[in-house]
Amino acid sequence: MQCFFDPKSVAIVGASRDPMRGGHRILKNVKTGFQGGIYPVNPTCNEIDGLRCYPSVLDIPEPVDLAIIYVPARLVSSVVRECAQRGVPGAIIESAGFAETGAAGKARQDELKQIATETGIRLWGPNCMGLVDAVRRHVFSFVVDGIWDAGCLTGDVSLVVQSGFLSAGFVVDLMTNGGMGISKACSIGNKVDVDECDVLEWLLDDPHTKAISMYLESIADGRRLLALCRRARKPIVVLKGGKSAKGAEAAMSHTASLAGHGGVVSGALAQVGVVEAHDFAQMMDICQTLARFPDPPKTNRRRVAVLTGSGGAGIVAADFIDEVGLELAELSEATRRELARVYPEWMPVANPVDLFPAIDANGPDAYRFAFEAVCADPDVDAVLLHLAALRPQHNGFSALVDTIRRAGKPVIGWVIGRRDALEQIRRQAVEERVPIFRELYRATECLAAVLNHRPRPSGGDTDFRSNQGPEVPAEVHARLGDARGALDEHRSKRILAATGIPVVAERLVASSAEAEAVAAELGFPVVMKGLSPGKIHKTELGLVRLGIASQRAAADQFRSLMEAMNGTGSVLVQRQVRAELELIVGMIRDPQFGPCVMLGLGGVLAEVLAETVFAVAPLTHSDAMQLIARLRAQQLLDGFRRAPAVNREALAQILVRVGRLGCACPSVREIDINPVLVSNGEPVAVDASIIVDG
Amino acid sequence: MQCFFDPKSVAIVGASRDPMRGGHRILKNVKTGFQGGIYPVNPTCNEIDGLRCYPSVLDIPEPVDLAIIYVPARLVSSVVRECAQRGVPGAIIESAGFAETGAAGKARQDELKQIATETGIRLWGPNCMGLVDAVRRHVFSFVVDGIWDAGCLTGDVSLVVQSGFLSAGFVVDLMTNGGMGISKACSIGNKVDVDECDVLEWLLDDPHTKAISMYLESIADGRRLLALCRRARKPIVVLKGGKSAKGAEAAMSHTASLAGHGGVVSGALAQVGVVEAHDFAQMMDICQTLARFPDPPKTNRRRVAVLTGSGGAGIVAADFIDEVGLELAELSEATRRELARVYPEWMPVANPVDLFPAIDANGPDAYRFAFEAVCADPDVDAVLLHLAALRPQHNGFSALVDTIRRAGKPVIGWVIGRRDALEQIRRQAVEERVPIFRELYRATECLAAVLNHRPRPSGGDTDFRSNQGPEVPAEVHARLGDARGALDEHRSKRILAATGIPVVAERLVASSAEAEAVAAELGFPVVMKGLSPGKIHKTELGLVRLGIASQRAAADQFRSLMEAMNGTGSVLVQRQVRAELELIVGMIRDPQFGPCVMLGLGGVLAEVLAETVFAVAPLTHSDAMQLIARLRAQQLLDGFRRAPAVNREALAQILVRVGRLGCACPSVREIDINPVLVSNGEPVAVDASIIVDG
Repeated sequence: MQCFFDPKSVAIVGASRDPMRGGHRILKNVKTGFQGGIYPVNPTCNEIDGLRCYPSVLDIPEPVDLAIIYVPARLVSSVVRECAQRGVPGAIIESAGFAETGAAGKARQDELKQIATETGIRLWGPNCMGLVDAVRRHVFSFVVDGIWDAGCLTGDVSLVVQSGFLSAGFVVDLMTNGGMGISKACSIGNKVDVDECDVLEWLLDDPHTKAISMYLESIADGRRLLALCRRARKPIVVLKGGKSAKGAEAAMSHTASLAGHGGVVSGALAQVGVVEAHDFAQMMDICQTLARFPDPPKTNRRRVAVLTGSGGAGIVAADFIDEVGLELAELSEATRRELARVYPEWMPVANPVDLFPAIDANGPDAYRFAFEAVCADPDVDAVLLHLAALRPQHNGFSALVDTIRRAGKPVIGWVIGRRDALEQIRRQAVEERVPIFRELYRATECLAAVLNHRPRPSGGDTDFRSNQGPEVPAEVHARLGDARGALDEHRSKRILAATGIPVVAERLVASSAEAEAVAAELGFPVVMKGLSPGKIHKTELGLVRLGIASQRAAADQFRSLMEAMNGTGSVLVQRQVRAELELIVGMIRDPQFGPCVMLGLGGVLAEVLAETVFAVAPLTHSDAMQLIARLRAQQLLDGFRRAPAVNREALAQILVRVGRLGCACPSVREIDINPVLVSNGEPVAVDASIIVDG
Repeated sequence: MQCFFDPKSVAIVGASRDPMRGGHRILKNVKTGFQGGIYPVNPTCNEIDGLRCYPSVLDIPEPVDLAIIYVPARLVSSVVRECAQRGVPGAIIESAGFAETGAAGKARQDELKQIATETGIRLWGPNCMGLVDAVRRHVFSFVVDGIWDAGCLTGDVSLVVQSGFLSAGFVVDLMTNGGMGISKACSIGNKVDVDECDVLEWLLDDPHTKAISMYLESIADGRRLLALCRRARKPIVVLKGGKSAKGAEAAMSHTASLAGHGGVVSGALAQVGVVEAHDFAQMMDICQTLARFPDPPKTNRRRVAVLTGSGGAGIVAADFIDEVGLELAELSEATRRELARVYPEWMPVANPVDLFPAIDANGPDAYRFAFEAVCADPDVDAVLLHLAALRPQHNGFSALVDTIRRAGKPVIGWVIGRRDALEQIRRQAVEERVPIFRELYRATECLAAVLNHRPRPSGGDTDFRSNQGPEVPAEVHARLGDARGALDEHRSKRILAATGIPVVAERLVASSAEAEAVAAELGFPVVMKGLSPGKIHKTELGLVRLGIASQRAAADQFRSLMEAMNGTGSVLVQRQVRAELELIVGMIRDPQFGPCVMLGLGGVLAEVLAETVFAVAPLTHSDAMQLIARLRAQQLLDGFRRAPAVNREALAQILVRVGRLGCACPSVREIDINPVLVSNGEPVAVDASIIVDG
């Protein structure tokens, strides 16, 4: 990837003299900042803008590290072949007209793919805006012009964007609206060869990048992405387009790529500590904030002090702090004593720290004084400042800068006020790298991202690069045998049991006498079910009989079930489990991430709450514990209504093993354990269905 | 209120020569725009800034319509008395140092209250920033200076803000950042006399106000507020601070006012068609958008077409449209044919309408062409435009202005791009009154506010000004008698039944023989309960016996219950209801709104979903139906898992009658019907507790 990010020389194929053409803008952009050799290529010119122009890359006498290609789509493959022949290690193809344009374009893109495979040339794009490196002032793009004049700030946030046009507008917006400095903006287009993982891998080691934002419509290689994110020591924020059913429809018609199931993507990102964003600007706001505070906080707490000049804004801030899962700090005794020195006598010191009366009594210095006290408070993990800048000459921020520098804890600001004063504050805040926001909620959610940032688990981690987990016992493979389709409940549970998953006590019975005996042995009441080949919906077919309380009833039900199945199926007798909670556990194969484990609430709650959480298999024990912790309805697990708490260790084991089964047995397409009943805190698989390919 | 909004002459008490003092700024601000008589009052000066200065309002020779008072708190009451004596109809008191500052301040404020009551002078404030009327250029405030120079835009959104300092920053921000024109900004401070209702009432009739935003920390008179909102023919957006438990804590320490229970406030606002906002800037964005489209949409549909230059942004927009409850429009055949004319052949026409390939093939005009087609489509109710302004000379917006003017449906824009181009677009958008936003989600939620805006129900509405609903039958009063405290289950249900609420069949029994007979009469199984005076938690005390299936068992349970109660209580036999759904219905008295009806999910769901919705009593039938519709878990009511759908009419009747009971019987403090069981779709009160004051 070095050829893209650190080329010594660049050829611009399709360079043009016409200022209205992209090929002209690329050349102009490259010339503005790039310090190495620049070789325009265009068979119709001898010279452009003072530079010698070559008919083909083959004619360039010096070595070429990078070709930027902007010629009509039908000519791209021959240009790329010439590049490969010339020994150019990489090319950014900015032309459109490939897989995004139907069958003919798709064929053109496939040809590029093949050239890359055959020759080893790395291809970035096509259908993209290329690369902007604000630190090195490399603008390898046809679209952005004049960004330096427009006040582009360099910074330490890098951006990967899949969508072409969007990235252009977005990058130009970021670069010219002065709110945030950026390091690299990478528009990767159709991803024929170079994909988000290649770029991410480079950025993770890039000393000029402290945090990374990615807007993705499809995920090229889910497991590699997860592996990279898990080893990342930089914050990563991802916005995944196409998550709702309707969004996914749009994704299908826009790109050839498969939009991932929203829950799977969210689960996978959460599993590796990636922050999921919701909107474009919000993604950048969070990323910028994390770039300022890239290390996980020293404490595990999330106690926020709010300094405000307005009790009203303090109230709303307290609401938001609650909403995003942070806590309002309880100020220490020492801090309270300090604050009391500037507070008027009648006013109790509290958090949010409402400073209007203190400022009224003691002048504007009271704000700085209070801010220092709060920064020194060991019971405060972060500070949310409210600044109302009413007059340009007293913007209120300058006085705090020294304290912010020394604070040793995150300080984030919400600012409102006069346009001119705000502009002053904005400039100072950029210089001092203090994240400030114009909306209070945004400030609060960015603060939450900082305080929720946790060190990634290290040691014994899943290597997502393969989906090989530890093997399952040989018995599992033996029991799977050459089965195809949906296995029946009993066989499915035998396989789960062989994997080490607790299943309900049950036996197949062949006669009414055996039914009587087994029922007695299991203990009443029992459940009896008719298992008929290919009949999955037992309940709907009347093949499930609950609450059988005597041997005679067991015998009767045996006969009744056999009759209902016309004598063809078999009958299962199982202990009836009295449960305090129903769960669902499953395994699916996601096209982007491979085998994934699902955990959800069962029964009525499943349908009302529709709450399921996903993680990518194989799961470590810690993955499984975190997956359980991601269910919103935690109170159900912790001894709800005086029930015993769910044994989370046991549940985690089930999740780990279901994932292992998915990884070890590629023919298993789907596993559905529904329900997993929790009885006296212990989860047990009561009904299950394993679906095998074929 | 006319004296505040349309005075002919103004006295400024506390006017000052010192430019650093508020009293100077008020005078300067008034002089800048106010056309009537201006009379500075200050005993230490003869003249300020070319105007004759009077020692007291009593010395002003001309009539004074309005006094603006900015003197130390201890002097305010005597100034107000002089104003009253002089016949000044109203005063804005901008001084601080009243109820917000503890006991002494509270006493000063109480004195003002009394003067207002005695003399009839209307008092606005204290502890406020007063009034800015951008249309008339009245700045009756000490804080805002130079707003006209800073680019303040006049518009048709008016704002009521309770919090003092916040409103200052907020108003200055709005006025100087040029995003939005405003009409009036009213900072009402401690509300000693003039409150949000007085101001709202004026604004509802103000021809310069098309939509109203209110930020409130407390609600002075909940029922009057609701009455005003219900009769409003203008959109109203409210942000209520202090809704979470923590927010409410902050509210208690900041103001003397009681922060309303979040659910009650949200329910009350929803009941009268007020839009509830979440954050400051968001409130103004929604309000500005509603001011542009103040009339409820002509259709009941919410079908949105998205025009984008980026498939990626289209995907995210589709996600958001789904999230806020709008739908993506299905484009009509005619529109599809039109769009196909500019689309490249390989690309199917769909919504979101991704125009990048069309622009690529047919130039930038394709965007306008597509926009016209979509505006003409009868199956499209609103259009969400994406604009990426990459070059100042082609900002993309100008070309659309004509079509937007003629569209006849809401058009809202999301814009990103170059700073200079954005500024051009912003100016044009303000001029053309097209709401544009820098964040896609914000654009989508504002569009949702427009499309969700419904005509307020008219006719047969609740008159919130009194809480007198229709009377309840005399039997209810008779049964309440002079009871005090928590009435037992049976008595509570007899009162509910007398109100016309269906209750479970049940009888008190005095002997085991009677228990046998009644049980047989009700039909098995029955439930038997021991009612012991003062013992509310029957289940915990072991006084509830379920599933009694025979006469003998009924007799046994009678004896057992009597024994458990040491022979003191009575025994209730009731039919055991087999229910498909558990609900809770209740009535509470909210300090701000009076009697409120609550509806929630019961059983396990109650604790997991914690879902309860409120409405203020008395409820009309339509209020009750809307209350039911506000439960998020609607699928539970509509024949969940093949159960019969809940009879919403019957449930609405229960809600109406509970509310009526609350209104008609002021001594009833609380009603708790838990559960209301739904059996075969019919709701019936199974357990209940009425709590009576005393």
